[in-house]
Amino acid sequence: MDPELKAYFTDYSSLDNEKHILVEYYFESLVPPEVAAAHLCQEMSTAQWHRVGVDEDFRPEFAAKVVDIFKMNLLDEPSSPFLARQMGWQGEKLFSCRVKIAFPTHNIGARIPNLLTAFCGEGVFHAPHICAIRLEDLTFPEEFLAEFEGPQFGVGGLRQILDVHDRPIFMGVIKPNIGLLPEPYGELAYQAWLGGLDIAMDDELIADSCWSSLEDRCHLLGQFRKKVELEINHPKIFQANITDEVENLIPNHDLAVRMGANALMLNSMTVGLSACRMLRSHSRVPLVSHFDLYGAMTQIPFQGIREQVFIKLQRLAGFDAILFAGFDSRMKSTHEDVLANVAACLSPMGNLKPSLPIPAGSQWAGSIAPLYEALGTIDFAVVPGRGVFEHPLGPHGGAFSLHQGWDAVKKGIPLDEYAQDHEELRLAIESR
Amino acid sequence: MDPELKAYFTDYSSLDNEKHILVEYYFESLVPPEVAAAHLCQEMSTAQWHRVGVDEDFRPEFAAKVVDIFKMNLLDEPSSPFLARQMGWQGEKLFSCRVKIAFPTHNIGARIPNLLTAFCGEGVFHAPHICAIRLEDLTFPEEFLAEFEGPQFGVGGLRQILDVHDRPIFMGVIKPNIGLLPEPYGELAYQAWLGGLDIAMDDELIADSCWSSLEDRCHLLGQFRKKVELEINHPKIFQANITDEVENLIPNHDLAVRMGANALMLNSMTVGLSACRMLRSHSRVPLVSHFDLYGAMTQIPFQGIREQVFIKLQRLAGFDAILFAGFDSRMKSTHEDVLANVAACLSPMGNLKPSLPIPAGSQWAGSIAPLYEALGTIDFAVVPGRGVFEHPLGPHGGAFSLHQGWDAVKKGIPLDEYAQDHEELRLAIESR
Repeated sequence: MDPELKAYFTDYSSLDNEKHILVEYYFESLVPPEVAAAHLCQEMSTAQWHRVGVDEDFRPEFAAKVVDIFKMNLLDEPSSPFLARQMGWQGEKLFSCRVKIAFPTHNIGARIPNLLTAFCGEGVFHAPHICAIRLEDLTFPEEFLAEFEGPQFGVGGLRQILDVHDRPIFMGVIKPNIGLLPEPYGELAYQAWLGGLDIAMDDELIADSCWSSLEDRCHLLGQFRKKVELEINHPKIFQANITDEVENLIPNHDLAVRMGANALMLNSMTVGLSACRMLRSHSRVPLVSHFDLYGAMTQIPFQGIREQVFIKLQRLAGFDAILFAGFDSRMKSTHEDVLANVAACLSPMGNLKPSLPIPAGSQWAGSIAPLYEALGTIDFAVVPGRGVFEHPLGPHGGAFSLHQGWDAVKKGIPLDEYAQDHEELRLAIESR
Repeated sequence: MDPELKAYFTDYSSLDNEKHILVEYYFESLVPPEVAAAHLCQEMSTAQWHRVGVDEDFRPEFAAKVVDIFKMNLLDEPSSPFLARQMGWQGEKLFSCRVKIAFPTHNIGARIPNLLTAFCGEGVFHAPHICAIRLEDLTFPEEFLAEFEGPQFGVGGLRQILDVHDRPIFMGVIKPNIGLLPEPYGELAYQAWLGGLDIAMDDELIADSCWSSLEDRCHLLGQFRKKVELEINHPKIFQANITDEVENLIPNHDLAVRMGANALMLNSMTVGLSACRMLRSHSRVPLVSHFDLYGAMTQIPFQGIREQVFIKLQRLAGFDAILFAGFDSRMKSTHEDVLANVAACLSPMGNLKPSLPIPAGSQWAGSIAPLYEALGTIDFAVVPGRGVFEHPLGPHGGAFSLHQGWDAVKKGIPLDEYAQDHEELRLAIESR
């Protein structure tokens, strides 16, 4: 290989690991993967630039460097013939690989926008010779993580607020959402809380809306929440969606919390992760992230960004709970991806508290058993919409059916059998 | 069709057009496209939700509705077999179409995050029956556009600042960037300005960096800029990249402008478009956007978001100039896409000024003629890196060669012929 390119390879053990982020890509290339990987490192960092007539080399201190490359089979056909043809492909075999790159943290600092620029910027998605590329994973050193606050409450803090310690968390998306006035909307949440829902949440499409202002909704839902808390002597959460232009986030936080919301949701990628991080350092309540926009990047296995990367970045930004694409076929996630997302929420990550994973998608009482079995932990939330709010007995019955679904798991009784003498669960099954 | 789904179709002429955004998608579906399109409208807006036991219908006021559907050929094979299989595909033919949907502006208000949630959110990328989907275009009514400030300077304002009225704008990305100290970095810009460069700009990977603080760099580059302006009695621009966490944007703006930057760059999608809009209402200088992150969404023709959508959103957010993937093969754009992006910058768009289009990618003096020919306007910028800063005679010669490249166009002389008695151009050609 060209010695200029060789400078982009190194042993991981020779690096100061606390000063490097490990960045993992899958890519397909028209040239041998080592050559393409070296070019990728160039584009992410120093290139081979030097001033005309000056002998200088910025690579030792600033270059991204390949530390591992796992060559895969030659491809007869690229995953995307379109992309390959745009890069000049004329029918020859293509190379594919997974590569691990060590990236010096001092190139970007502990800043999310600059991190996204380096790992998902022009240099990556327009790297020479590479016709398809997916960012697979990011692994951060503790020293870098220590510069982020991360979740303020985390799983433990959420459990403490809710006083729920021995089972998954039961969330519900209040429906109908678009067009329903705050008063009947609040009544639905009240019924669901009474039935045993922990967190009643806004859908991602309702915010400070013309039919339901943030102020009115939080005021009414706050009143309903306090009413039910008094009646059953148990805490509940109303999670308000404050997604809005960045300049409104802090005012929206202050208003919503003053009025009675005790958790806040952001459609994080549409607001921008950095703005979410800004809100985190101001927030007095748990922050929950909803998964909009990044579906445009995460669903293709050979191009874009794997969802677990966004989960890690949302944990960095400080979300206490994170919704993401779950097991439902409509969610287009692999089983492996859902598990990776859960791990990205819960696995040790420096000083950062774990975030509550919420694998979403058309859930109901019957979703609890398979989720619990697949995840092997109670530290997750189910988040039905219809499964609670269109239950034949209404939201009270829908919420109650979730508890019955969990009781069946605890007692090791098959759902259908347990439903025989549990009305709400039976109706939930029948109305599927 | 199910009458419940028929409610999601309407005549565009029957709508108040000033109250609806036109949203255009390409999609592939497992069910007939009309059925899939109706479900898509549901997910983007009201669904069929009503309270249990209550007769209510929010669709007349709040539903997204199909106004046009262009059915395409049945597909023997889906564009992404992976996505189709995740949706339950078992080898049958698939439907494909382009659909235009009218979306009520009052559902979201004039807010970019809520717009992205509605048009690129869970409802779209996880719509039932749809296995691949791309957001193709957005068309905004004037009443909606009037709520955005848009570009403060636009093409005309930039031309006025630079006093350049009769040719394309010559930008250059200062190289080397990563690791080079501000003093020699400024010297490079000075040489390029002297040679005739209009705008010397930071690369997207340099920001407020440990080897080149924003303060030092803007101070030195501001001094060099004023020096050259005095020497040649002509205005120049130093465009500083202030990409950073959102809470630093306004302080960075104030610092950079005070120190001597007279245009600012943001890696807009990594910062978040809404934060950029916030900065726009504060900014005293032109804002320029660099195209990071969205390469993860724009390159696949059947999935994600077409680049022209991001161009329009960046114009909405107030960018005076917009870099995007140009004609170079590494940029993976179709010819048609580049032209659509230029049109998204320059075409009439309510009250919004045009943004200067900057189709980027490995440019040099020889890029000017084909760009001018393809675009049919002088309202664009070329943006070489190497083509200016690694010119054999240095940045002065590189910048000078751009003028010679343009002179050849004006005089209708082929580049090679014109180069025979124009040294800088000849060397530019020879060093390719």
